[in-house]
Amino acid sequence: MYKAPINEYMRIVKRWAGDHPEYDINTMEQVIKAVAKFCEEALEPTNEKGDSEGVKYNAKTHAVKIPACFKKVYNDICQNGYTSLALSSEYGGGDGPWVLHHIVAEMLASSNISLTTCPMLTNGAIETLIQNGSDEIKELYLNKMAKGEFTGTMCLTEPQCGTDLGLIQTIAKPSKGHYKLSGTKIWITFGEHDLSENIIHLVLAKTPGAPEGTKGISMFAVPKFLPDGRKNSVSCGGLEEKMGQHGSPTAVLNFEEAEAWLVGDEHSGMKAMFQMMNPARIGVGVQGLALSEAAWQYAYEFARNRRQSRSLDPKKQDKDAVADKILVHPDIRRMLMAIEVTNLAMRRLVAFTSHHLDQKHEDIVGLLTPIIKSYVTEKSVDNISLAMQIMGGLGYVKDGRCEQLYRDGRITMIYEGTNGIQALDLIGRKIAKDGGKTLVSFINSCKGGDKRLRKLLDEANAYLLSNAQKPEVVAAIAPSYLILLATFVQEWLLAKDDDLDPGLHLFYKEYILPEAEMHLLRIKGGGSAYINYQGYDKE
Amino acid sequence: MYKAPINEYMRIVKRWAGDHPEYDINTMEQVIKAVAKFCEEALEPTNEKGDSEGVKYNAKTHAVKIPACFKKVYNDICQNGYTSLALSSEYGGGDGPWVLHHIVAEMLASSNISLTTCPMLTNGAIETLIQNGSDEIKELYLNKMAKGEFTGTMCLTEPQCGTDLGLIQTIAKPSKGHYKLSGTKIWITFGEHDLSENIIHLVLAKTPGAPEGTKGISMFAVPKFLPDGRKNSVSCGGLEEKMGQHGSPTAVLNFEEAEAWLVGDEHSGMKAMFQMMNPARIGVGVQGLALSEAAWQYAYEFARNRRQSRSLDPKKQDKDAVADKILVHPDIRRMLMAIEVTNLAMRRLVAFTSHHLDQKHEDIVGLLTPIIKSYVTEKSVDNISLAMQIMGGLGYVKDGRCEQLYRDGRITMIYEGTNGIQALDLIGRKIAKDGGKTLVSFINSCKGGDKRLRKLLDEANAYLLSNAQKPEVVAAIAPSYLILLATFVQEWLLAKDDDLDPGLHLFYKEYILPEAEMHLLRIKGGGSAYINYQGYDKE
Repeated sequence: MYKAPINEYMRIVKRWAGDHPEYDINTMEQVIKAVAKFCEEALEPTNEKGDSEGVKYNAKTHAVKIPACFKKVYNDICQNGYTSLALSSEYGGGDGPWVLHHIVAEMLASSNISLTTCPMLTNGAIETLIQNGSDEIKELYLNKMAKGEFTGTMCLTEPQCGTDLGLIQTIAKPSKGHYKLSGTKIWITFGEHDLSENIIHLVLAKTPGAPEGTKGISMFAVPKFLPDGRKNSVSCGGLEEKMGQHGSPTAVLNFEEAEAWLVGDEHSGMKAMFQMMNPARIGVGVQGLALSEAAWQYAYEFARNRRQSRSLDPKKQDKDAVADKILVHPDIRRMLMAIEVTNLAMRRLVAFTSHHLDQKHEDIVGLLTPIIKSYVTEKSVDNISLAMQIMGGLGYVKDGRCEQLYRDGRITMIYEGTNGIQALDLIGRKIAKDGGKTLVSFINSCKGGDKRLRKLLDEANAYLLSNAQKPEVVAAIAPSYLILLATFVQEWLLAKDDDLDPGLHLFYKEYILPEAEMHLLRIKGGGSAYINYQGYDKE
Repeated sequence: MYKAPINEYMRIVKRWAGDHPEYDINTMEQVIKAVAKFCEEALEPTNEKGDSEGVKYNAKTHAVKIPACFKKVYNDICQNGYTSLALSSEYGGGDGPWVLHHIVAEMLASSNISLTTCPMLTNGAIETLIQNGSDEIKELYLNKMAKGEFTGTMCLTEPQCGTDLGLIQTIAKPSKGHYKLSGTKIWITFGEHDLSENIIHLVLAKTPGAPEGTKGISMFAVPKFLPDGRKNSVSCGGLEEKMGQHGSPTAVLNFEEAEAWLVGDEHSGMKAMFQMMNPARIGVGVQGLALSEAAWQYAYEFARNRRQSRSLDPKKQDKDAVADKILVHPDIRRMLMAIEVTNLAMRRLVAFTSHHLDQKHEDIVGLLTPIIKSYVTEKSVDNISLAMQIMGGLGYVKDGRCEQLYRDGRITMIYEGTNGIQALDLIGRKIAKDGGKTLVSFINSCKGGDKRLRKLLDEANAYLLSNAQKPEVVAAIAPSYLILLATFVQEWLLAKDDDLDPGLHLFYKEYILPEAEMHLLRIKGGGSAYINYQGYDKE
């Protein structure tokens, strides 16, 4: 039932990747069409099966079985290099544009988010190894990881710390030129599985005597199998029972004096972690968009086939049938357009950011990364819920397919840093790091968007500036500020897109823009009502 | 882990049911405490079990098994009369206030929505039988239904018609003083099960030669077992695989010349259906609120125990611990308060409506019923999502309990008439039926609420009035109008509640009120962007 929106993707690559030295438009079209065919025919049919079958944990052997139907499609993805398109050819990648990479990633996630989250995370691990790994590590792992023969994980969270990594207790002691690492990590996506020959865990830990807090964190590579073929002493202690993504194992990992290699310098683990996390954060935003695209397709297909009641406009009534297609009804159109136009806007935001990633404009990519992670995942979850509403009862049952998207998608607002953390990253790191210079110069470069939205953003910025010395106020308004900025950028991207149906752009201004008005009002409240509320202080 | 908020409930009954002739405050307190104890100790522990075990269908015998642990608690509910508190004692009820009934219903649904949806629907069936049933039917069924020995269903939907009941094909032919009814009904909640001795299906069907459309619909009572003990020819053709409420069977029912009794006059089925549906619509709103209350409790419990990071205000830092409770962080407080204050507001809206139900003020109850069904379920689903966000990863896994609420609750926005249909009911029936008189007199009676909100509502009403002759515009703005009106009424109810912490009321004005501002902007757009969009007309 899923159909990759090829025409839309071609518009995107022409606009945002048309100038790429290695990939001309014809090559990109071939890639898009090949991935589309693979996703529609081979990958998407595994999605529901994986959800029903789920991952299986063997408490005796500590082994994890991935749904059987995932193996062939995983191998196809790897052999065709679908997830390493933008990676340097030095490490087995395709030297291609990130714009194309994220379109391919979207198709893969629309078809099966559970499985394709594995190579998505592996990409993040590759990124940090390229930037921080020793030659030995690079030589051992990068080519195999790029080909998917080895996969990568990010091992950050422990029972007592998720957001606050300063509380990490995992310890890595020097031993014979390397380290012995011990501790327990939780929420490890694809932390154990039977898809690949080896798993390279990138683990945050502390060395003996390291400074307190995040300053003392180092990153280590801990392979499941050692270079000499022996099993390393890391084992899976169990899997989480999740609401969705049943085909993706979320593991508890126990490290007991596991052999570990330092990645980057000692105590520079947080920097390396962000190099791993940032591509994954964009990747998670793309996952959200991908599910919202699939939900849109299911809902639209339903709305143009289901007939109930008569149009309120006699001219629109289909007299040859007993009732009209529900897409004539204003409320159904409202929901359909809300999904469609925000999907288009979010895709342009991802493409614009990917374009700057291709141009190595780190500041602007840094600014837009938390917006993609937070805004796109939240709006996408809302969109899937709207699609469910359009489908009525069918939206809530397995046959309608939408309910799996609803369950699978909700975690995108949580993993790789909750959306609340993204808002703090935007305002506290990305905007504050140069006193707002990157932000202001970016906003000034967005010419031609809606005047009202620019005025709203100006007001928000003035409020932010005048409260810059009040950290609680800044934190309190951060989520609303992120949404306002996201709406501004996306409207601007829609305004400059000549291919867009003007009716969709009009809907964005009439229906989505009021969300920004609401958030400006909340910003101007300064969060005083919740900062100062005393009802929770008694505890 | 669930604790019934007894103090809050006592405030509600004192304010809204304190003048009841049969139930004094002490009696109500006893009932509330007894139900609270039962819910916490007996009912709530069945909730997760029911979700894991699910309902089972036997394709050979067409029988449906409910999770085994549901039986004892169901019997306890019935024997104690917990669901028939407000029913007339003439039919086995308790002659109690609806205000108390809905508080009891909230506790029951907080503890196990899947099971308690059965008596909730039975209540709607009882209501229509009281108003429309022949003496024979009343004598046969009402007492047993009030005691839960028999349960009731509403059989409306068919594969080709849900919202548009005019398309019904089920036929009932006169036969020996009664009728023989044939057809297929779908989405029938508790349409088949092994909890009770008998099931009384209330079925919409057409008699031969009946007028086309909804005017030709009649209602019939079709018992699973006939008065002489024989099995009637109605059988379950299968169950839906739903996203949630796994303990509640959603059945396909096949009627093959089943013996049927006319309920009310021929062709008056829609009226009888609404008499059944209206209490159920309030009941569904209460279900939403009930899950939002449970979600609030899980999230609050988590937030006041989980420690991550430091407060941005040094004065609030707990130096004795390695990190602060997350409820010190502004974004966590924002989400907690958004859940808490809207729960309080929604509970007051339900109590206020129940009070008018006790006073038999049909017009005002009619006006507020679609608001409760639509606004409360939608806000509650949003609240459960916020609770999940507060809980982070734990929110997404079974151990955290919140994910079941998220899955179970989503259907409340769909069943008993989708929320889009509620908005049309509000504006097209409840407001339009007397040219807005009930609405205007109700609004005028709400004295002392926020001035800004009243101004927004006045503007919305002016827009509505000036577009009253444009049915598509009225339909297009209906959902936003419903939310604006709901916000106005709830703020007024909070304002007049002397027991409320002023900090919560302030939050409502600072954070929730902007939602009304957003919806007024959408209303003033008149929906033109989606009414006139031509992108969907090509299909």
